[in-house]
Amino acid sequence: MSEVHVARRGLLRERCAATAAHEGPPDAVLVTGPANIRYLTGCPPLGTALLIGPHGVDTLLAPASAEGPLVQPGGSEDELRTSRLDSPDGDTAVAAADLAASAGARRLAVEEHHLTVARHRAMSSVAAGLRLTGLTSPVEAQRVIKDDEEISALRVAAEITDQALGELLESILVGRTERHLALELERRLIDHGAEGSAFPTCVATGRNSGLGRHRPTDRRVEEGDFLSVRLGAQYHGYRCQIGRTFVIGSAPDDWQVELYDLVFAAQRAGREALTPGMACSDVDRATRQVLKGAGHAEALGAATGHGVGLEIGEDPRLSPGAMGKLDACVPVTIEPGVHLPGQGGVRIDDTLVVRHAADGGPELLTITTKELLAL
Amino acid sequence: MSEVHVARRGLLRERCAATAAHEGPPDAVLVTGPANIRYLTGCPPLGTALLIGPHGVDTLLAPASAEGPLVQPGGSEDELRTSRLDSPDGDTAVAAADLAASAGARRLAVEEHHLTVARHRAMSSVAAGLRLTGLTSPVEAQRVIKDDEEISALRVAAEITDQALGELLESILVGRTERHLALELERRLIDHGAEGSAFPTCVATGRNSGLGRHRPTDRRVEEGDFLSVRLGAQYHGYRCQIGRTFVIGSAPDDWQVELYDLVFAAQRAGREALTPGMACSDVDRATRQVLKGAGHAEALGAATGHGVGLEIGEDPRLSPGAMGKLDACVPVTIEPGVHLPGQGGVRIDDTLVVRHAADGGPELLTITTKELLAL
Repeated sequence: MSEVHVARRGLLRERCAATAAHEGPPDAVLVTGPANIRYLTGCPPLGTALLIGPHGVDTLLAPASAEGPLVQPGGSEDELRTSRLDSPDGDTAVAAADLAASAGARRLAVEEHHLTVARHRAMSSVAAGLRLTGLTSPVEAQRVIKDDEEISALRVAAEITDQALGELLESILVGRTERHLALELERRLIDHGAEGSAFPTCVATGRNSGLGRHRPTDRRVEEGDFLSVRLGAQYHGYRCQIGRTFVIGSAPDDWQVELYDLVFAAQRAGREALTPGMACSDVDRATRQVLKGAGHAEALGAATGHGVGLEIGEDPRLSPGAMGKLDACVPVTIEPGVHLPGQGGVRIDDTLVVRHAADGGPELLTITTKELLAL
Repeated sequence: MSEVHVARRGLLRERCAATAAHEGPPDAVLVTGPANIRYLTGCPPLGTALLIGPHGVDTLLAPASAEGPLVQPGGSEDELRTSRLDSPDGDTAVAAADLAASAGARRLAVEEHHLTVARHRAMSSVAAGLRLTGLTSPVEAQRVIKDDEEISALRVAAEITDQALGELLESILVGRTERHLALELERRLIDHGAEGSAFPTCVATGRNSGLGRHRPTDRRVEEGDFLSVRLGAQYHGYRCQIGRTFVIGSAPDDWQVELYDLVFAAQRAGREALTPGMACSDVDRATRQVLKGAGHAEALGAATGHGVGLEIGEDPRLSPGAMGKLDACVPVTIEPGVHLPGQGGVRIDDTLVVRHAADGGPELLTITTKELLAL
């Protein structure tokens, strides 16, 4: 894995040089976003900061309290120096600014969307000769298109997720609380080899069903309920997402079938719109207009999907205001939902990888059935 | 609860007026730290921003995607206006700056330790006439001393935590993995009424035992192991912490008894040093010098304890460089540990509330025994 990280840091260096402002490229880049540090080093980002350069030397700075080796087994310290702070109250970003200045850097590019105003000021005051600029080529943009190894990790994460969900569906659900079902799903993710949950598992039943961000409660599953679940495994750091809605009992009501079919149609429209070159806002529109046509436009959230990877919500966003187009090898979710207040609702989420039609079109990672099951 | 929050916001206003820089007090304060928003409003802080003033009017700004009521049942919209953004891609802090400027504010105090450089710049550009200053009296400082209701919530959190741990100790441990034991503890926390875990549960066995930040692995508990666990419940938003170390099998080895007694003595020294008026660095020194005397000074992390409340690691910090003194009604942890690489180690953590000797001295919230149990 170590070579991959060296190559990623090399690419970041090249992009910074190419897209630099008129003052010329920065002498060094400071990375403080946790997922970005992991992407560029493979190391767990507990309070660390990554200094890329100057002079081609990269250094991972860790707090004094960091335990254990900083570089993972398989990584090599030849390619990445590590430095642990002396002072227990020290700040790794400030130490990095100091280090960059001592190594002769004049301009340091920083991640202004991660760094707080207070840390930025502390860095300026510790290294007065160093000019801090914004990073013009964010690491997040570099992370959008995934390589084969990343997609393999997501594929395994999705398999684990499907297994955990499949097992839950075979068990008795009536009478159990949302909280317990959520915990059980999380336990099953671990059982099947996940490092943990990609995000807090959401189980929503009855009038809670279909809510996008619902915190599981002590409400018990009852006959006739919609039950919506949303979960995902994390595997080798990569996070996927699935969402499904079921009906509890023998047969769904008419309104349930109608609402389900509508959300399913919207989700399918979004999935089918996933092609390289398609504008992100157009994918969102494909999903959204199906619900709008049925008078449920307001029920939708800000986005109907988003990229996944080392973070569960990363670029690209599939929303009306999103800029940019899809590329091949970009994993995204398609996740429309409708919640009728006081009544409940439906959500259906999948994780897919954008692929050219010649390569078979969008690759569905989360393969649990989307029929309306009565459990 | 609503009156409590109104009073807290009133106090923040007063403190800002009293400690303002020479330019005079700010016209309004923008709070963006999630725990601070919860402290001042009682509302879950999902992407929200809280604007205190101007003209005595407080507004909670929520993203367009926020679902459900913003103000909790029991809260009153009379005392706290709420405003949902129109644009799905809008930023609540930027909208708050705009709102403050339209209401005539000239100076807006912001939380520079939470706000990113990028958001700060976006706020400046949307409200050009508005001057952004640092908040001179941080909400974190206001949160240090807890009221009776907050301490009651912590007491319940500790009870739940003790129950979950107690049940685990009655079960068979040999042969089970760290991951499964951690998940089981988390399930039991929920069973006993916790909203969730205060932090990721840590279970470390054998050579992993005694590590401060250990992510549970698939290692199974074996005869003769040290088993160290660290967990805590969250209740009404408040988070406590307990850490205990046990030995697996019939009788501990001599080195295990020695190391345990040493860490226990260090932890007791720290607990006994908890008095109002005591310097935070002196509490740390009390704990630390016991281990230093036995040659284990380097095994200790940056801090030997910290405040707890709406966050698991809040002010005060008990570390060598810590400033300030303890007050009564401040809940803190005392949590020394020694890890011997390749061999294992011991951690003992308690949550206590600082009290005057006349009130009975430090109040121990986590009451599970600290004898070295052989399980």
